[in-house]
Amino acid sequence: MSDHTSKISAGEPENILLPGERIDDLQRNGYKIIQNPEKFCFGMDAVLLSGFARVKAGEDCIDLGCGNGIIPILLEAKTEGRHFTGLEIQEYSAGLAERSVMLNHLEKKVSIVKGDIRDASKIFGASSFHVVTTNPPYMTAQHGIPNQDEGKTIARHEVLCTLEDVIRESARLLVPSGRFYMVHRPFRLAEILTVMVKYRIEPKRMRLVYPYIDREPNMVLIEGLRGGRPRMTVEKPLIVYKAPGQYTDEIYDVYGY
Amino acid sequence: MSDHTSKISAGEPENILLPGERIDDLQRNGYKIIQNPEKFCFGMDAVLLSGFARVKAGEDCIDLGCGNGIIPILLEAKTEGRHFTGLEIQEYSAGLAERSVMLNHLEKKVSIVKGDIRDASKIFGASSFHVVTTNPPYMTAQHGIPNQDEGKTIARHEVLCTLEDVIRESARLLVPSGRFYMVHRPFRLAEILTVMVKYRIEPKRMRLVYPYIDREPNMVLIEGLRGGRPRMTVEKPLIVYKAPGQYTDEIYDVYGY
Repeated sequence: MSDHTSKISAGEPENILLPGERIDDLQRNGYKIIQNPEKFCFGMDAVLLSGFARVKAGEDCIDLGCGNGIIPILLEAKTEGRHFTGLEIQEYSAGLAERSVMLNHLEKKVSIVKGDIRDASKIFGASSFHVVTTNPPYMTAQHGIPNQDEGKTIARHEVLCTLEDVIRESARLLVPSGRFYMVHRPFRLAEILTVMVKYRIEPKRMRLVYPYIDREPNMVLIEGLRGGRPRMTVEKPLIVYKAPGQYTDEIYDVYGY
Repeated sequence: MSDHTSKISAGEPENILLPGERIDDLQRNGYKIIQNPEKFCFGMDAVLLSGFARVKAGEDCIDLGCGNGIIPILLEAKTEGRHFTGLEIQEYSAGLAERSVMLNHLEKKVSIVKGDIRDASKIFGASSFHVVTTNPPYMTAQHGIPNQDEGKTIARHEVLCTLEDVIRESARLLVPSGRFYMVHRPFRLAEILTVMVKYRIEPKRMRLVYPYIDREPNMVLIEGLRGGRPRMTVEKPLIVYKAPGQYTDEIYDVYGY
């Protein structure tokens, strides 16, 4: 546990951590999350998606490729949804997520399932969720894959599933008029919208995330409606920094500071 | 000529104007344009498209649905393109455009053709232009059509041609690797990108135009490459106003002030 730097408060089960892991505070409901900087840490993408997604009271949600469980845990904190499922193919990440669920005593509200996104509608059944969220791998398998940690490669590159796999399974998992929320990279926007339309998840709302007001956006947040009619809203820009190292008020707000 | 308010300088042929028309200065090369506030005046859309489109030396361009010729005339002023064609179905608008071409002595560089966008590739032949520009009707035919001037209805609503007509004909008109430039409304972005991909005009560059930094965008500028590979750039925001009535520097620049 040499690399374990942060704040475990008294009373927490220290044996919930494996070597290299640490516990971070989520600034929401007192929730914490287990991370491993060598293997998987959540990014701003996941936090922004949790602020963009709308989950209504009583709804059931699934996060496809949940990593360490950050999105289901944040959505449980921020919304009135009934139940949150995280699907994760990597054994180690799914274990991180399960231990974070236990750490926060959320076993009744959040379930982590180890499995393949490509099998999601077989695992859970068709039309079984009101909301799908996903922060999928951004890079295609062809984008030069660095010869590094396999887990990071799987999280970042479409080695195990493609954008089309994610959207196709989302369409199957959603109830009619169910909502789909994804964070991705703007350079794939044409493909994102085209594949959503192909699988009848109509793009309805989009927001671009610009690091600074005078820079290109580096993330896109998108909402789709299963079976919706064409017509979408592009929202005002989401700006991350107002000066180097200084977040905008909106970013502080979504992080809960 | 009762409604003819503006600045005709000495020596200009006054008989080039019909009742209700006026001549406006384009702030480029001394060029002027004939407008009729009752029938057709160009908007900021056209000016922004003329700043977004890239025309290289020696290239041939066509503007589909050119109205009073604003885009071909501005592109002739701003670029080193060889020749510019404007296609316009409405007799009156095509006449306005032709008279503006004469007024600026551009008969050798700019041609106005009266005809239907849906027949464009028959009129001009396939693979006959390096660049297509278009500022098409934004509203579908179903969007409540006001019972007003028919010419304005045709310019604003898809009465005579749809988005798909425009994109299909653009794909036919363009040489391989030819470039397509369009200004449209963000609410139709999913359809725009989907139809471009369908006709193999790959979206490569996009810019959203926001009236203010904290508002939803009301225009989208898009560049496509005929036969291009998927991967696009979303550019930094184009902001119109920094304060009410006060344009940003970029807008003053594109207008030539």
